[in-house]
Amino acid sequence: MHDVDSKLKAMGFDLSRTNSPAGSYVPHLAQDGLVFISGQTCKKDGQLIYRGKIGRDLDLNQGIEAARLCGLNLVAQLFDACNGDWSNLAQCMKLTVFINCAADFEQMPRVADGASNLLLDLFEDKGRHTRSAVGAYALPGGSSVEIEGIFALLRQQ
Amino acid sequence: MHDVDSKLKAMGFDLSRTNSPAGSYVPHLAQDGLVFISGQTCKKDGQLIYRGKIGRDLDLNQGIEAARLCGLNLVAQLFDACNGDWSNLAQCMKLTVFINCAADFEQMPRVADGASNLLLDLFEDKGRHTRSAVGAYALPGGSSVEIEGIFALLRQQ
Amino acid sequence: MHDVDSKLKAMGFDLSRTNSPAGSYVPHLAQDGLVFISGQTCKKDGQLIYRGKIGRDLDLNQGIEAARLCGLNLVAQLFDACNGDWSNLAQCMKLTVFINCAADFEQMPRVADGASNLLLDLFEDKGRHTRSAVGAYALPGGSSVEIEGIFALLRQQ
Repeated sequence: MHDVDSKLKAMGFDLSRTNSPAGSYVPHLAQDGLVFISGQTCKKDGQLIYRGKIGRDLDLNQGIEAARLCGLNLVAQLFDACNGDWSNLAQCMKLTVFINCAADFEQMPRVADGASNLLLDLFEDKGRHTRSAVGAYALPGGSSVEIEGIFALLRQQ
Repeated sequence: MHDVDSKLKAMGFDLSRTNSPAGSYVPHLAQDGLVFISGQTCKKDGQLIYRGKIGRDLDLNQGIEAARLCGLNLVAQLFDACNGDWSNLAQCMKLTVFINCAADFEQMPRVADGASNLLLDLFEDKGRHTRSAVGAYALPGGSSVEIEGIFALLRQQ
Repeated sequence: MHDVDSKLKAMGFDLSRTNSPAGSYVPHLAQDGLVFISGQTCKKDGQLIYRGKIGRDLDLNQGIEAARLCGLNLVAQLFDACNGDWSNLAQCMKLTVFINCAADFEQMPRVADGASNLLLDLFEDKGRHTRSAVGAYALPGGSSVEIEGIFALLRQQ
């Protein structure tokens, strides 16, 4: 995974720009080789970029971009959890994708693929993961998407 | 658990008919004895059987059947994660049940029991599990229920 | 953590009063040092205390109190999972906070802090945790909040 950094650079994404937690919690926490990453919203440099309901205020393509941005924020937290060394990542395990959407919206999988394809692009086989994607009635700050993740790290022997 | 297969056969359920993922993710993934199974909707042979909101488009009994079908789809993925050998299953651990429902619907536990009772029927003590059940605003393809699960497998020594 | 019990006593909370599961599931289950705790609603002594949508039927402060009550119910289950001995707790790992709210409600983090601050007050460093907080369309029995948790226990050697 030597080229994860170069792929991210080509996307213009700066891994060091993690968003601060929105409350009394921590962004990631590891135990016995599993790291839990807190729900990431559509923020860039601390500002929400995608707000409102997909299928009403935003179209499908904007929804996909919103999920991709959440995915980038997850990746930045993951890098921090890996102590800045991608070789500590064993496997992406699970994404839970909450989508702020219209009542009749049905394309959660298309939206969630914005984040899933990012993980596959960056980490290839180690980027494969399980997933749930559901419609939320509302999200923090009016964010259009929120994604949490579980990842496996190599354990120090 | 020698009779899990015979119980499923009596229900007319074919374990080999797993539904394909709806996007860029995998149906199950194991790490250190825990297997995560992606959200399963109310599909049979690739077709959504229960669509719409419980408490508006579907009644309680249909909701229970919808959750049971999601449960059967989880069980099929679990069988695959167990490499086709139920003796590899250590314990059902956790279900998260997302219910596409009317705004005033309150009987999520009754609906979710459609899946929970299936696990108990099939696996008895090993089928005991923790659970959350919540109302979703919308679900993929208009599915009435979506259920994800975490299971413990015996670890190869 | 010798004073967890005294802090809870000062809050007037009786750890032995766990609420019964609302269906065919168990309140907590541990495997290899991780304990999963089922979704806890705003119940006290078996009665729902906070019902309805935050931002419509309940105000922000009531929402914070509702989340705190869910947190207390999680703590009671955690105590049982620890076999009544807080020294078995290694770390709070993850809360998922489902908030029954109005369509335009955006302050999920403020509400969820009702539970998060409780864990920090009680367990200090061991109370630090990751979190997601999302808006649900409806919750069991009309509860205003539902919170599930994952915790790490010390493993018996």
